[in-house]
Amino acid sequence: MSENTMKVIDGGVTAAKGFVANAISCGIKKPEATRLDLALVYSEYPTTSAGTFTTNRVRAACVRVSQSHLRRGNVRAIIANSGNANACTGAGGVAVARKECSIVARRLGLKASEVAVCSTGVIGLPMPMMRIEPRLPELCADLSAAKGHDVASAIITSDTREKEVSVEVCIQGKPVRIGSCCKGAGMISPCMATMICLVCTDAGIAREHLDAIVHHGVEHSFNRITIDGDMSTNDTCLVMANGASGVELAPGTPGWEDFVAALNYVLLEQAKRIVQDGERVTKFVTVRVVGAPTPTEARKVAEGVAKSNLVKSSWNGGDPNWGRIIHAVGYSGSRVREEKIDIDIAGLPACRSGEQTDTPSDDLRALVQAREFEVLINLNMGEDEYVIYTTDLSPEYVDFNRSEYAYWNQAKRDGLTR
Amino acid sequence: MSENTMKVIDGGVTAAKGFVANAISCGIKKPEATRLDLALVYSEYPTTSAGTFTTNRVRAACVRVSQSHLRRGNVRAIIANSGNANACTGAGGVAVARKECSIVARRLGLKASEVAVCSTGVIGLPMPMMRIEPRLPELCADLSAAKGHDVASAIITSDTREKEVSVEVCIQGKPVRIGSCCKGAGMISPCMATMICLVCTDAGIAREHLDAIVHHGVEHSFNRITIDGDMSTNDTCLVMANGASGVELAPGTPGWEDFVAALNYVLLEQAKRIVQDGERVTKFVTVRVVGAPTPTEARKVAEGVAKSNLVKSSWNGGDPNWGRIIHAVGYSGSRVREEKIDIDIAGLPACRSGEQTDTPSDDLRALVQAREFEVLINLNMGEDEYVIYTTDLSPEYVDFNRSEYAYWNQAKRDGLTR
Repeated sequence: MSENTMKVIDGGVTAAKGFVANAISCGIKKPEATRLDLALVYSEYPTTSAGTFTTNRVRAACVRVSQSHLRRGNVRAIIANSGNANACTGAGGVAVARKECSIVARRLGLKASEVAVCSTGVIGLPMPMMRIEPRLPELCADLSAAKGHDVASAIITSDTREKEVSVEVCIQGKPVRIGSCCKGAGMISPCMATMICLVCTDAGIAREHLDAIVHHGVEHSFNRITIDGDMSTNDTCLVMANGASGVELAPGTPGWEDFVAALNYVLLEQAKRIVQDGERVTKFVTVRVVGAPTPTEARKVAEGVAKSNLVKSSWNGGDPNWGRIIHAVGYSGSRVREEKIDIDIAGLPACRSGEQTDTPSDDLRALVQAREFEVLINLNMGEDEYVIYTTDLSPEYVDFNRSEYAYWNQAKRDGLTR
Repeated sequence: MSENTMKVIDGGVTAAKGFVANAISCGIKKPEATRLDLALVYSEYPTTSAGTFTTNRVRAACVRVSQSHLRRGNVRAIIANSGNANACTGAGGVAVARKECSIVARRLGLKASEVAVCSTGVIGLPMPMMRIEPRLPELCADLSAAKGHDVASAIITSDTREKEVSVEVCIQGKPVRIGSCCKGAGMISPCMATMICLVCTDAGIAREHLDAIVHHGVEHSFNRITIDGDMSTNDTCLVMANGASGVELAPGTPGWEDFVAALNYVLLEQAKRIVQDGERVTKFVTVRVVGAPTPTEARKVAEGVAKSNLVKSSWNGGDPNWGRIIHAVGYSGSRVREEKIDIDIAGLPACRSGEQTDTPSDDLRALVQAREFEVLINLNMGEDEYVIYTTDLSPEYVDFNRSEYAYWNQAKRDGLTR
């Protein structure tokens, strides 16, 4: 591999040197279930770390604890579960999250604040600690670099597949790796999506620089996707860098830009995979707004279109309905002028100056039968742009999200609710 | 009837004295269709009038023309059609709307600016004037007070039923009537909803006072409903007052407050009927927010919950999912504090101080099987309140809105599109 060329590699969150993991089945959602639902990722070397979290005012206990630990220093281990979000669980929920961190820390010889915690699942039910706590020693005992894929399996919920993206860049003559796994399929909206993304790299990067590039990368990836317009209480993206590659990076050092590009690739690719795996979706649509007077106006238009139920329903029907798109542009809150708006669908002009074009509707219709296409909206009022990745809305999405009875019924059997 | 007691009466938009109407079938959507789709309402006496319109930046040609006519004076006739929204149709669409007004005006002996025009249907296709124009003389010739119900039929689209609300109040010893008809079932979101509401009263009221009470009434009715979060390009509420009852009203005159209450009743009842007739909905849910620090914060929370696809999907499933409600409160943009939030569902406490209550989940579940219930959210941060009326989201709604092919195919046969 030539210097600085990025290549996509196999392997997930443990693809980079010095990271090990384990995942077990605790039956967090249902005692009789055998799927993996509790995972641990650990760096054998000291790390720097960075994280971004939901901006929902209602924050899960795990988000509060992880934010607090990151403020105190770097985290070197992450415990993550699916099946329960540990959200809206009050002081008891925070105590449970802290307890998980301190038990794991003691086993690994770390401080409790060196462990972050992520949870995803139903909101409002206490964590079934009676099933989690007895299994923590086993989780911490059997860590291995071969178990990255198990982590990817343990954190997914309504996802239909594991999401692993890993890359290698040759920097200063040495291979530097970034490994990641991610979950998310519903309750996805900027900023951020209902998602967990864990990223581990063997580059060495000072905390301040890692913070800067992770926040910038998340802004252009996870904050640019929406499936259902519903922002979760639990969104978390955590990045750990351990320097095990022997390559130290900082702005200005050789290979810095390549590393940043590689990290951005990993984050954006994971964000797109969440959209592609959206709950019961059939389309992956890129909404690109150009010609806006400000970046904020561009963002409002893109979000207005990407969140419109009527626009999304028409995409589900393979209907190139530019009338619904322009109606959403109009109510997006942006100061648009109808008579200046141009809309292209899948590369063909559908609307010019706010009116229909001569493009045959059958041509447009044929193109939106594809699983992926782009909607390009030119406001013709300036130079600013924004892009958002989104999906259709399907009858099956609504049907899938009609009920979480199963969670409540199990919680009642567990004595955690009445 | 005793003085000032309001009673609900039969009859629609022509229930008040001096208003006549007609409706015909033009085949606007499909030439072979026989349903009523073009209507005219006319006051035999001079009027004062007021109107409120969509705040969507993309405004239909009919909205532009009606706004312009109302700015110039009072309107005494309203022509309305279903099957085509005359939106995103450029200068040609405005010319068509003006032509309709001027032909009707000539026939009725009015100025063109005394005629308002409303259209509802698909966005982006030119109006099939070759089918409308030849029928306008017939529409204007055969006006009658008995044809109010035909107007209610002619303006509906995806509505499953006509919406007529009429009342009578005894003021100054005389009966004063307010008649109305309304349409709307999808693309419904504040402010305002995809709707047309025509209101005719035989009270005499100066323009400035009518303006004030109509705007206030719409703010507390049509601006408080959402079905799918999609705000239309065509929303219009028009009110005409002709004084034919012999009762002149102004703030301070006997019966003024009773008349305002009666008008507010008509507007709110029509707004609720739109929600109850929402496209493929199964629930009518009142979202009431109390204890907010400002009215704006209360509104943000109510709209956040009422527009959440996940919350609405859970209502469709009869699932009293307070976790999803609080997650939407959290991302609504309001400055809430999770640990202060209380949520009651159908009168039972579901969440206190951000955590689950002891209310058995089966009790909550039983209550949300009802077609109508209230969600009460207390932020415990102040005294301000807001209420919004909304629906569930059903798989059938998405299926219903997948395609408007039929419109495009007919427009192609009409030579109005390629």
